[in-house]
Amino acid sequence: MAETVKRVAILGAGMIGEVHRRAAILAGAQVLGVMASSPERSREVAEAWGVEQAYGSIEEVAESKADVVHICTPNASHVPYAVALMKAGKHVLCEKPLGVSLEDARQAAQVAEDAGVVNTIPFAYRFHPMVREMQARVQAEEFGTINLMHGSYLQDWLLNPKATSWRVDPKAGGPSRAFGDIGSHWCDLVEWVTGDRIARLVATTSITIKQRPAATAATFSAAEVDAPLIDVHTEDSALILFRTANDIAGSAVISQLSAGRKNRLWVEVDGMHQSAVFDQEQPEQLWIGSEAGAEILVRDPTRGSAEQRRLSLLPAGHPQGYAQCFENYVVDSYAAVDAYAGHGQAPHGLPNFADGARAAEICDAMLRSAASGEWVGVG
Amino acid sequence: MAETVKRVAILGAGMIGEVHRRAAILAGAQVLGVMASSPERSREVAEAWGVEQAYGSIEEVAESKADVVHICTPNASHVPYAVALMKAGKHVLCEKPLGVSLEDARQAAQVAEDAGVVNTIPFAYRFHPMVREMQARVQAEEFGTINLMHGSYLQDWLLNPKATSWRVDPKAGGPSRAFGDIGSHWCDLVEWVTGDRIARLVATTSITIKQRPAATAATFSAAEVDAPLIDVHTEDSALILFRTANDIAGSAVISQLSAGRKNRLWVEVDGMHQSAVFDQEQPEQLWIGSEAGAEILVRDPTRGSAEQRRLSLLPAGHPQGYAQCFENYVVDSYAAVDAYAGHGQAPHGLPNFADGARAAEICDAMLRSAASGEWVGVG
Amino acid sequence: MAETVKRVAILGAGMIGEVHRRAAILAGAQVLGVMASSPERSREVAEAWGVEQAYGSIEEVAESKADVVHICTPNASHVPYAVALMKAGKHVLCEKPLGVSLEDARQAAQVAEDAGVVNTIPFAYRFHPMVREMQARVQAEEFGTINLMHGSYLQDWLLNPKATSWRVDPKAGGPSRAFGDIGSHWCDLVEWVTGDRIARLVATTSITIKQRPAATAATFSAAEVDAPLIDVHTEDSALILFRTANDIAGSAVISQLSAGRKNRLWVEVDGMHQSAVFDQEQPEQLWIGSEAGAEILVRDPTRGSAEQRRLSLLPAGHPQGYAQCFENYVVDSYAAVDAYAGHGQAPHGLPNFADGARAAEICDAMLRSAASGEWVGVG
Amino acid sequence: MAETVKRVAILGAGMIGEVHRRAAILAGAQVLGVMASSPERSREVAEAWGVEQAYGSIEEVAESKADVVHICTPNASHVPYAVALMKAGKHVLCEKPLGVSLEDARQAAQVAEDAGVVNTIPFAYRFHPMVREMQARVQAEEFGTINLMHGSYLQDWLLNPKATSWRVDPKAGGPSRAFGDIGSHWCDLVEWVTGDRIARLVATTSITIKQRPAATAATFSAAEVDAPLIDVHTEDSALILFRTANDIAGSAVISQLSAGRKNRLWVEVDGMHQSAVFDQEQPEQLWIGSEAGAEILVRDPTRGSAEQRRLSLLPAGHPQGYAQCFENYVVDSYAAVDAYAGHGQAPHGLPNFADGARAAEICDAMLRSAASGEWVGVG
Repeated sequence: MAETVKRVAILGAGMIGEVHRRAAILAGAQVLGVMASSPERSREVAEAWGVEQAYGSIEEVAESKADVVHICTPNASHVPYAVALMKAGKHVLCEKPLGVSLEDARQAAQVAEDAGVVNTIPFAYRFHPMVREMQARVQAEEFGTINLMHGSYLQDWLLNPKATSWRVDPKAGGPSRAFGDIGSHWCDLVEWVTGDRIARLVATTSITIKQRPAATAATFSAAEVDAPLIDVHTEDSALILFRTANDIAGSAVISQLSAGRKNRLWVEVDGMHQSAVFDQEQPEQLWIGSEAGAEILVRDPTRGSAEQRRLSLLPAGHPQGYAQCFENYVVDSYAAVDAYAGHGQAPHGLPNFADGARAAEICDAMLRSAASGEWVGVG
Repeated sequence: MAETVKRVAILGAGMIGEVHRRAAILAGAQVLGVMASSPERSREVAEAWGVEQAYGSIEEVAESKADVVHICTPNASHVPYAVALMKAGKHVLCEKPLGVSLEDARQAAQVAEDAGVVNTIPFAYRFHPMVREMQARVQAEEFGTINLMHGSYLQDWLLNPKATSWRVDPKAGGPSRAFGDIGSHWCDLVEWVTGDRIARLVATTSITIKQRPAATAATFSAAEVDAPLIDVHTEDSALILFRTANDIAGSAVISQLSAGRKNRLWVEVDGMHQSAVFDQEQPEQLWIGSEAGAEILVRDPTRGSAEQRRLSLLPAGHPQGYAQCFENYVVDSYAAVDAYAGHGQAPHGLPNFADGARAAEICDAMLRSAASGEWVGVG
Repeated sequence: MAETVKRVAILGAGMIGEVHRRAAILAGAQVLGVMASSPERSREVAEAWGVEQAYGSIEEVAESKADVVHICTPNASHVPYAVALMKAGKHVLCEKPLGVSLEDARQAAQVAEDAGVVNTIPFAYRFHPMVREMQARVQAEEFGTINLMHGSYLQDWLLNPKATSWRVDPKAGGPSRAFGDIGSHWCDLVEWVTGDRIARLVATTSITIKQRPAATAATFSAAEVDAPLIDVHTEDSALILFRTANDIAGSAVISQLSAGRKNRLWVEVDGMHQSAVFDQEQPEQLWIGSEAGAEILVRDPTRGSAEQRRLSLLPAGHPQGYAQCFENYVVDSYAAVDAYAGHGQAPHGLPNFADGARAAEICDAMLRSAASGEWVGVG
Repeated sequence: MAETVKRVAILGAGMIGEVHRRAAILAGAQVLGVMASSPERSREVAEAWGVEQAYGSIEEVAESKADVVHICTPNASHVPYAVALMKAGKHVLCEKPLGVSLEDARQAAQVAEDAGVVNTIPFAYRFHPMVREMQARVQAEEFGTINLMHGSYLQDWLLNPKATSWRVDPKAGGPSRAFGDIGSHWCDLVEWVTGDRIARLVATTSITIKQRPAATAATFSAAEVDAPLIDVHTEDSALILFRTANDIAGSAVISQLSAGRKNRLWVEVDGMHQSAVFDQEQPEQLWIGSEAGAEILVRDPTRGSAEQRRLSLLPAGHPQGYAQCFENYVVDSYAAVDAYAGHGQAPHGLPNFADGARAAEICDAMLRSAASGEWVGVG
């Protein structure tokens, strides 16, 4: 629970806005108001949610009494809204991606640094307790020197050629789809866990389904749509090889056309003493391999690293999952606001706009390499 | 059981020679003789095995009454021995790799084609019944059009910096170690299962352990050796991206430094209808994913494809493993000899010298790309 | 979200009271007040929670404006509090067990029936979406006639002989420990899923750790305590065989001394067409076996039974867990209150006081059989 | 490889006879002759196998030059043949069960003791290397004092009501089917691993499929048969609770009607320090649980107990399975023959006729308890 009651505004009333609202309430915040797609819609949502303010414009939000703003609007508005609000002194929790271009993302990160306010991005998988355990063990060199990083992030939500989503359209979702959307999570996780950085990479991408129906609504899930077919310009899958700042080799397979895979983010880090695997579809455990065999380490609030314990909200054997990740992200973002005000310290591992800009840099490098066929530098 | 009793000679009396001998006996062959590292050693082994002939030279083998010769000697002698024997009209089962250079491999394949004798290579994993099932389903288009191929082959047998093996030395094992040894299995399997071919690739390799003890003996397993350290010139890990003749993208991670992985060959083929995974450490099953969920298909001699049934030697639930793969390989090689003599047909899926040369081509492309940093064509 | 805003009181401010409060807030309830272990403590908690009322006695709660009361106090007070509140017309969500004796439980169930108010018990595992899927498929006879039911519920939280808990003391926790606490969940689940009833059973119990420290505090988790050792009178493990009303045989192994098992409730139901397994430590999936192989069915809000969809709060691949079970239980309890008031229908599968009394009957039979060594009837 | 070349005779030329022949040849034995279902059939098989002798009667076998006889004939002949041969001084490897009645089994064990010859029974699962590891760790008290033993042995081969086998008929297969056939393996394994003994038990059995076609042929697998239906008198499933000589509680679920289970023998032993699980469908690993998590111990000839190493015939990661179990059983039986002749020591853990009689005692107790509904003593 945060030090003081946060007064928050929520921009966006879609599914993801609801997820933020739920986590804000659980974290003890007071939701002051909401801004939806139009002033009328803002008033309807404010009434449904039982909140006082219905904002008609970003200026109204900037002038409101909210301390903290959750930005859950379509991708293209993330950066202009975040910039305006940070300049007005608001703390911001901004949905990923941080804009739809590298320039946008870098600008937002720069403004965040200048403004000095709290700025966070939901790279939510960092908040799985067993990811924390993995990071703590890498940092303590329990696995030995890392010699390889590899894995994949596989989904099947766009396997149906008749399905589409606003994410397919570069204007709404950015020039990279599979990599920008889920590959960015994989890269953030592997860089954060290892403390190493992808220095250069080579990529190949595929657009397997050449045409899909035009997207007509901003739905979160892929829907079968009865609309005219249009050409697809964003990748269904992206594969990269990379070498890090420490010259470690790595590989990632990112796909939205892998049947039977729902959200399979798999990260393996191989050290000279032990290997470790985190699989997001089995987030309660870590596989740790050594020459003598393997260990299945289960989440347990009474064992392991300080961060595993801190983020464990339930006893061992009572599965946590995605909801707790997101709740932890919001609680930690609010704790950073407390720290800003002089109460306690900002928590460990909170992903911020610099991390958002970093994701944009890797994505840009991936697209450049896929186009040129050459190894390219990142950043 | 083969049509006629095969009279066989075995070259090489090490561990792998013993494996061949065991499979030959189980397949009903009569072992005529053996050639070991020296005429004296040949006589000792012949006595120990209870066989009549102890060959002192390859010429003696070529002139012997053996119909079939198993070549289980060190890598550098594979091709000269195979070539001499095929020219003498012998059928040959030759251990992989097919020589230590691309030129060697191509020569052997050419001689094999000219001689017309039976020539096989133990890409033994093809003989797991569930690999056959996977291949049959790809060919029947049950998975739909393939859109992605990926996986890894991970071991930890060279994780110990004090351990070494003759495989570390390019002169004895060839210029590529991890890829040449195990990556070649991965590529053979994915090409054979899909019927598609790796057309071009980009690679990166790592020599993580820069020095190891000099290898002093031809041991099969990595041994801690108390010997002077020498520079290592063969890769510990190799990562590739590729595109196939059908322009499908793929990725493979090959490593001998992944702690806790003993022999983890993992192949995933993603089709537009279903995905399928074969994991060599769990060879009795196939994972098949679809949008509705996943199926764990278990080996069962009473179900599935004709080839699964044919190679299933035990009832469902009585695990088969590596031994049966190898036995199936030898039985099928002998059946090809029967077919050569006009008895029946050569079995499906028998890997031959053309496949051995193919493996050498891919390995050569991998080394060229790792050196140049560029995408290169294969073959 | 419930039809009307529920005004709720919470009795008990320990860990489980906090769990109820969290779920009540998420379900949109207004928490009016709290009653803790003393009037002073009630005031402290009320202030900490920011709620208006601090109740000094059950009478004050009965006279309050609360519509719904969550009873989260120690076991011995469950029934007296529930009875008093139901007679006052309050709807009650009462923590399990329903009292510490069979008589208590039956009385509570009778009062509940007479009063007609909503009365529910958190047999929370019923609210895993994949348990709903299993139940729906049994009811639709997809598995064929059931021929066997078996499984286990294993924990290790009392493996340490120096650890104890109030649950060890029969006065505080009732005469059965392992079976009363976790065996009751197993039996509830198997009876609810199959719609069949355990008619008679035979049992054997073990008290492996003969003495433990005296419990000094009402902690939820087992704690190492530096206190005088006292004799243990409640079982560490209980094993039963049973036959159902339909004369189906069954078996359950219940233990709190199984190292490495945290909360492993495993239920297998074998039908003449298919078998099905639910494992609470992997609650996102159902294993379904058939002669042709096995299917891993994953939770997916876009597929499967109506109840699976209804209780799926997150997309497939974003793991739900224990928290969502409990939230679903509270949401459904409130929906039953709406139905009581004429708004909609009471949800399917809500466990009530009759189910609590049923659990007490099975537990009583288990104890009688363990004492006599004979098969005994249930109820 | 055995000390001397064994001269063996094989009785029975069905599928299991073939399995013995294969293992005998691999173990270096010389197969002298065979006795099949008739003198004519013996001659045919002798020719097919390429062996010299075709025995027309048990007397001929007793008078032959064979040192060792493998008895692979139908169950009812096991004991008379074994008795006759042991009295003639032959060493015997006799298929299980040791006769179809308790009296038979006890007689055979007595004759074996009096004759002093080598007498073994293929409780083959003892020969999985990871079962040896489990046994070694129990004996070294690594798991701490055992507090519970539980598990199951599940198959689905008789799920089809139209299928049958000679095992269904009490005259051919004995009065117990599921328990006698597979339950006996489970009990042997748990007693051998723990060194403890089932002292008393209570059981319940089910004949779910009341009628099946009459069996017409001695097939090994269940076959759909077009024959008149007859009443079934042997159980489809048997469930037991037991207490051991050390007063440890246990439970086993035995079934041949569990869809999707092919040969799932699962044994869990819970100690006060660690728990351990062996699952025959995953025989290359042992699950070891402790309060801190779980370990997956994989078979590795370079690690672990002396017996694991001894029986590991392949490198780690190259799966062994059922075939190697059986081969190890025969090799060890022959080593016992060597020891009888004064060469070396009899190997550890070889199951003999006393173990066969023990299995008959437990089976008899199970049937008595299922009939009476009471706890009964074993033996």
